[in-house]
Amino acid sequence: VGEFELLARLRARLSEGGARVRLGAGDDAAITVPGAATATSVDAVVDGVHFRRELAPLRSIGHKALAAGLSDLAAMGAEPGEAYIVLGLPRDLDEDAALELHGGIESLAGATGVTLAGGDVTRAPALFLAVTVVGHAAGADDLVRRDGASPGDVVAVTGELGGAAAGLGLLERPQLAAELAPEVAAGLRSRQLEPTPRLAEGRALAAAGASALIDISDGLGADAAQLAGASGVQLELDLERVPLQAGVPELAAGLGVDPFELVVGGGEDYELIACIAPGRLAAAADAIARSGGALAAIGRAVAGSGVPLSGPGGRLLPPSGYDQLA
Amino acid sequence: VGEFELLARLRARLSEGGARVRLGAGDDAAITVPGAATATSVDAVVDGVHFRRELAPLRSIGHKALAAGLSDLAAMGAEPGEAYIVLGLPRDLDEDAALELHGGIESLAGATGVTLAGGDVTRAPALFLAVTVVGHAAGADDLVRRDGASPGDVVAVTGELGGAAAGLGLLERPQLAAELAPEVAAGLRSRQLEPTPRLAEGRALAAAGASALIDISDGLGADAAQLAGASGVQLELDLERVPLQAGVPELAAGLGVDPFELVVGGGEDYELIACIAPGRLAAAADAIARSGGALAAIGRAVAGSGVPLSGPGGRLLPPSGYDQLA
Repeated sequence: VGEFELLARLRARLSEGGARVRLGAGDDAAITVPGAATATSVDAVVDGVHFRRELAPLRSIGHKALAAGLSDLAAMGAEPGEAYIVLGLPRDLDEDAALELHGGIESLAGATGVTLAGGDVTRAPALFLAVTVVGHAAGADDLVRRDGASPGDVVAVTGELGGAAAGLGLLERPQLAAELAPEVAAGLRSRQLEPTPRLAEGRALAAAGASALIDISDGLGADAAQLAGASGVQLELDLERVPLQAGVPELAAGLGVDPFELVVGGGEDYELIACIAPGRLAAAADAIARSGGALAAIGRAVAGSGVPLSGPGGRLLPPSGYDQLA
Repeated sequence: VGEFELLARLRARLSEGGARVRLGAGDDAAITVPGAATATSVDAVVDGVHFRRELAPLRSIGHKALAAGLSDLAAMGAEPGEAYIVLGLPRDLDEDAALELHGGIESLAGATGVTLAGGDVTRAPALFLAVTVVGHAAGADDLVRRDGASPGDVVAVTGELGGAAAGLGLLERPQLAAELAPEVAAGLRSRQLEPTPRLAEGRALAAAGASALIDISDGLGADAAQLAGASGVQLELDLERVPLQAGVPELAAGLGVDPFELVVGGGEDYELIACIAPGRLAAAADAIARSGGALAAIGRAVAGSGVPLSGPGGRLLPPSGYDQLA
């Protein structure tokens, strides 16, 4: 497949519209009319490092690469705007396969109102994707950083955790599905392969005045520690209050691990961790519930540092117990 | 080298400032306060496809990857703003080497006033870089596309052409340097390894009212054809009026090719092709001369399509003569 021909075919599939896009792919650069402030994130994924082609359909690989970028915008509370996609394609991936991969990107972009405004295609020894996403806000202060939490804030998480790690376990050991209802197994696989960026939740939390936000890409333990470190607070988390995705306990049993290991160290759930003043929690939870999501309080910010985790029965888990996973 | 540790070391080297950057690397996304319109371009380069590590110092690989992106901003007439860099690092490239590569990026960013506002680092089977650049303008109409040329416009190029292809020839066959003065040979190598994006020239051409702009990444022939096709005009070019970089004729003789082949098909000179109304050419040329650059008229836009090239003595060169290069 020639690069130019494939580029032309992909360009034809890029979104023409987009409220902020004045000129999409095909010129030296895309032209956009941004908000007064923008949030920009760049992420790359490489076959054999971040995913394995033998475990993931091509559409899912495309979906997940864009989802990870959009999750960063969710974690800023930004309005999603444009995405720019670099595809590095190995020789054994033909043009139809490249279009299938791109189809997963197009589908998620369509579902989230994101304009695919440009990109690049190159030959590469292994499949890689580099995704740049741009989100918008009315002002820089409307975007929520990870360094604004204060002692007294409630710590909350959106959605349910543990599903991405459980889903990976299920893809690696399909026989474990025998213990699960089919729709539960499908939900776990889907969380691993095609996670949903929590864009509406992030914007609701920003509008409600969240003091700090981060998305869960490396696991609740590692990402909470990032937020705690950036904000200069300690986050006391009660793992028993963390909502688990259906099937996580059964899958953990099948894998022979504690279900909380899948939550704390598993990563890739792409839910959000928020810190927010107690008086603002209900408004945020209500707004998120109205858009079909969920927000659960799982702890509080106090003076100090680090992320002490209390487990079943209030037992304090040594942070070192999860070090190898984080 | 651990990804996290290297990321931390690279982040410490990212620019803190930048007039438009409110928050740089280290959060989920960078926060910027953009102009009323932005130009965004994404390009990737891969070892063995776009460069060869055995021919190019690591600093040059970094420099050139950013230069190619900034050249796209030059070709929009945009004010350069931020860059976001993805590094894909193979195992045989250690941390010091990664910092050397990044040093080439930092150096060019510093020289052009570009803020390195974020990025990502990943393990990869071969070295790759994906560069996202964002430029700014007071309005979308201040950015110059490639589709605005009209019959009657003058076609002009900045600087001197052919040097990048000649420099590549010199890197591949170092013995050809014997025919050249040392500073001439150094100039050719430098054009290939560390090209200069024509940012001031692009902004001067935009301010002077250029109707269409494109940068020369694939060769004068291919890039002029892109502009002609997008604008729906024919570009009649007189190759004898194209300024050649010093040493190009000698190097072409050493390689046994016509010097115009290095201009038309060589690519990577990263000069600009502009179309502009005849009455506006002098103002553009004066502004560019004041910033130390040069602008030369090399042809005109007429009704029709394609890019007929006339060579020495007015002889019309068949476009097919360069097809294998374009």
